[in-house]
Amino acid sequence: MKKIILPNIYYSNGLLIGNNVEKVVRKIKDLNGLFDDEASLNKIDPDTIVYEVSSHLEEKEGREGGLFFGITYLYPGKVGNEYFMTKGHYHAKIDRTEYYWGIEGEGVLILMDEDRNVCGEKIFPGSLHYIKSGIAHRVANTGTQILSFGACWPSDAGHCYDTIAKNGFSARLREINGTAVLEDSKKLLYV
Amino acid sequence: MKKIILPNIYYSNGLLIGNNVEKVVRKIKDLNGLFDDEASLNKIDPDTIVYEVSSHLEEKEGREGGLFFGITYLYPGKVGNEYFMTKGHYHAKIDRTEYYWGIEGEGVLILMDEDRNVCGEKIFPGSLHYIKSGIAHRVANTGTQILSFGACWPSDAGHCYDTIAKNGFSARLREINGTAVLEDSKKLLYV
Repeated sequence: MKKIILPNIYYSNGLLIGNNVEKVVRKIKDLNGLFDDEASLNKIDPDTIVYEVSSHLEEKEGREGGLFFGITYLYPGKVGNEYFMTKGHYHAKIDRTEYYWGIEGEGVLILMDEDRNVCGEKIFPGSLHYIKSGIAHRVANTGTQILSFGACWPSDAGHCYDTIAKNGFSARLREINGTAVLEDSKKLLYV
Repeated sequence: MKKIILPNIYYSNGLLIGNNVEKVVRKIKDLNGLFDDEASLNKIDPDTIVYEVSSHLEEKEGREGGLFFGITYLYPGKVGNEYFMTKGHYHAKIDRTEYYWGIEGEGVLILMDEDRNVCGEKIFPGSLHYIKSGIAHRVANTGTQILSFGACWPSDAGHCYDTIAKNGFSARLREINGTAVLEDSKKLLYV
């Protein structure tokens, strides 16, 4: 007879637990320059957690044909009228793709191509999103509870945060008259 | 202002719905040679559905760096004392990997390396399974309700069903004294 074992990874309360799982916590103080309303930002405790990502990183970083898997827990909140969001990135290997899927809560996946064209897709429990080649991606929580979503991406994709850190997205997701609106960014450093 | 749209894919009742989704249904009559108890097999309606897979196939098949995504709905049942299961496969590109994760129900992921060493991992809601390079994989439903699990794999992985169809796995998952047991296969056509 052969062994039947428990898997060494599982998710619980929105986070992965087990072997080869790494957790990243992003607080307001770690997200310098992400939100544009500095007056509102200064009123928020810098230790406020904006999001946590737990990732299963068993595969060798950079290997073609491997995969990574992550769960993000994005807290509800706003800086001024801008929703709490992730930093956002392109993949370092620009043609690498990614799946996101909604687990709990509600939000918007903000997508931007290399010509800085932006659109958003609603995230909800059961939604599925394919992030194609060459598309920067970030997620904002538009609800009043935690937004949790899953992600799977190639282990040779890499992350390029620099372009977004420098130039931002060309639109920001704001609550305007009680509705989430993708508004052209006022801080367009680069067109 | 930019557009915020609904995603064009979502999952509901264990299946994906939307654009570029393809559904495959496997009935008892499609699974010739999969189960070993032929007397019990002949007593089952050949149109009995064993499993359904709905896959989001927007990416071009064979493209390096792309991904596919699927949800499998595996019905409860047995043929003799062998649990309903999927056909199982290696990837055609043998070093390509895959993630499975449990959504509802309970089962076992059966893994076999190229030397025909077999082990099993329990699947349950929240379980996560990384299928590494060179590992054949199949799933059996050991519960009394539907087993639903998600999958994400590289779009250049391909599927090789032939080796498994010809030689099977080296162990079969049977209910013995009320427990799921991976028993050495009696039909070892190839060692």
